Amino acid sequence: MTDSPDAPGPAPVAGPVVGPVVGMVGAGQLARMTAQAAIGLGVGFRVLACSAADSAAQVAAGTRLGDHRSLADLRDFAVGCDVLTFDHEHVPGEHLAALEQAGVRVRPGGAALRFTQDKLAMRERLAGLGIACPRFAPVRGIAEVEAFAAGTWPVVLKAVSGGYDGKGVWVCASAAEARAVLAHGLALIAEEYVAFDRELAVLAARSPHNQGAVYPVVQTVQRDGICREVIAPAPGLAPGLMAKAQELALRIAAELDVTGLLAVELFETPGGLLVNELAMRPHNCGHWTIEGAVTSQFEQHLRAVLDLPLGSPALAAPVTVLANVLGGDDGDVYDRYIHVMAGDPAVKVHMYGKPVRPGRKIGHVTVTGRDPAELADRARRAASYLRWGKENGE
Amino acid sequence: MTDSPDAPGPAPVAGPVVGPVVGMVGAGQLARMTAQAAIGLGVGFRVLACSAADSAAQVAAGTRLGDHRSLADLRDFAVGCDVLTFDHEHVPGEHLAALEQAGVRVRPGGAALRFTQDKLAMRERLAGLGIACPRFAPVRGIAEVEAFAAGTWPVVLKAVSGGYDGKGVWVCASAAEARAVLAHGLALIAEEYVAFDRELAVLAARSPHNQGAVYPVVQTVQRDGICREVIAPAPGLAPGLMAKAQELALRIAAELDVTGLLAVELFETPGGLLVNELAMRPHNCGHWTIEGAVTSQFEQHLRAVLDLPLGSPALAAPVTVLANVLGGDDGDVYDRYIHVMAGDPAVKVHMYGKPVRPGRKIGHVTVTGRDPAELADRARRAASYLRWGKENGE
Repeated sequence: MTDSPDAPGPAPVAGPVVGPVVGMVGAGQLARMTAQAAIGLGVGFRVLACSAADSAAQVAAGTRLGDHRSLADLRDFAVGCDVLTFDHEHVPGEHLAALEQAGVRVRPGGAALRFTQDKLAMRERLAGLGIACPRFAPVRGIAEVEAFAAGTWPVVLKAVSGGYDGKGVWVCASAAEARAVLAHGLALIAEEYVAFDRELAVLAARSPHNQGAVYPVVQTVQRDGICREVIAPAPGLAPGLMAKAQELALRIAAELDVTGLLAVELFETPGGLLVNELAMRPHNCGHWTIEGAVTSQFEQHLRAVLDLPLGSPALAAPVTVLANVLGGDDGDVYDRYIHVMAGDPAVKVHMYGKPVRPGRKIGHVTVTGRDPAELADRARRAASYLRWGKENGE
Repeated sequence: MTDSPDAPGPAPVAGPVVGPVVGMVGAGQLARMTAQAAIGLGVGFRVLACSAADSAAQVAAGTRLGDHRSLADLRDFAVGCDVLTFDHEHVPGEHLAALEQAGVRVRPGGAALRFTQDKLAMRERLAGLGIACPRFAPVRGIAEVEAFAAGTWPVVLKAVSGGYDGKGVWVCASAAEARAVLAHGLALIAEEYVAFDRELAVLAARSPHNQGAVYPVVQTVQRDGICREVIAPAPGLAPGLMAKAQELALRIAAELDVTGLLAVELFETPGGLLVNELAMRPHNCGHWTIEGAVTSQFEQHLRAVLDLPLGSPALAAPVTVLANVLGGDDGDVYDRYIHVMAGDPAVKVHMYGKPVRPGRKIGHVTVTGRDPAELADRARRAASYLRWGKENGE
């Protein structure tokens, strides 16, 4: 009747039960939370970390150190992994191709990941499928940007891949601002500045067997290009739009041959839904699923890349609100736990073990219940308290 | 708007955010699931494992190898841990005392843990508090057992501590059976055989600050001395009994100065509740809390031993049913995942990474919903399928 160490008894009928091993390239908070899900499923899990101090490397037994830009390191890491997957989009496409050619199971595959690494390719592919996106065009100089703007500013400039000084998106209010961005010498596309009503996101999973599962559509609240809150499901969303967004995500996943998760960030506009961004991995817009859905996005991603039957994406609570915790002026976040936990015993705190840097995502909090406004208030309060210090003018 | 590796930006205001470090002695499934909770909280977590193949050692970055019966190993392990806690009761009491004397924060403390290591001391302490238990007496020979039985068999014999061949409890139908148990030469107590209606369990947490939290009372279903199912909350339990059991657990936790979790196993009888066993750690009767409660027992234990405010023990679903997965005849459990997951996408599978041995707990499954009977059917089906092979005559 106890859980004490196992008594002597019949001999094992097999060695340790080790399922397949998933290797995740990258060791940020996404890998960290995927490690939690892998523990539950009992599958092997390894991360390729740049440093032992990385968020996931601090906690996962199966950490290997290496550089995701090095094919040799990737090859070494793939040895003993049944599937390779990713917590970011920064593995060069030619390395993905080389791994696949060598017989490594890369999920999602390089052909799909390309659409998260090349924004022009993504826009052209979606346009080819007839999927509504903001108006866009590649731009090589100020004349093309001005032609695109046709006198209407702001215009959004996006790096086709990568970025400059950590930024890849610039909202330019004038030709002068566009010139400053062009000066970085990056390949760029211009996009219309969408006056959206709000931002939504929808998360789907697809397995190599072509099974699909899609979560309820959520509302995301961004400030300064950083996701601050997620409300699941999106309050007051017309059932028709909910279904339309879900179908869209499943369709994109199938058309782009995504295996694993696909996050689709959307603008809700008076004219309908426009696709903003795609990601093919666990995503900030899905962290609420840890408490708010029957299957967390992290477990779902593992099930999908392992080609296991997908888990139920149904709601586990009527409403879930998440608020990201950003770094503030004080590095000792732990010191403030006691106040947050005492203030609201039902708030779920998730910390990523990352050094505090002002404005950097270092964790998130989640609250479940019925009333989106009340939950948002509680989530904001907890996140704000954990942040401490100046609040970027809020 | 992405979770990509952090962009360059302001310099960190502190090194990696590392909260306090909890060291758990023992690396079974309880430590494994506590590791998942520690990842979420962002606190440091180490386990002292006998072997790198232990359930928790497979997954936790902070694994140290050592023997929990060696004071030197325990002292080494305690270095760098802010709190020491346990996934079993097998650390010798004199070692606990020595650690405490050396200033190590041991939670629960040795004085409390003694009542889980010495069943006679536990019975005498509870009796002294006026808490209803089965009738008991220490017995040193067959004459005392027969005097205790007074002609009424069966009688339960229990090892005061430890056991023989992995067993510590024997239901003896006759004096001859009692003689066979006495022959092992263990210190024993005799207890009346309780004809209970059913078994219940209640889980409380208590922090050094003396904050208490208690989960709803659950029903446990045991077969051959092994917990097979847990139904939360216990169906049809009179509200008066629910409150009484909860008060009982909080009272025992306070009286015995427990820090961390206290699991109280109860018999429900026509005459009321009797205390069967105590444990001071996460317990099988609380695994349902991962999905079924706002705060899992593993997070709650960490919060309690760290003296953080306790989390809400409220239900996250109206009803949760758990079934333990026992080892069967076939070691390859993973091979059967696909069927269980395809058959019921809402069942939550938790595997412990343990070698399969017939009858050994190797995992559990959980289902949440509204109807206990329907949920029990689904949980049993999944657990039975994962077990495979012979079903011990079921």
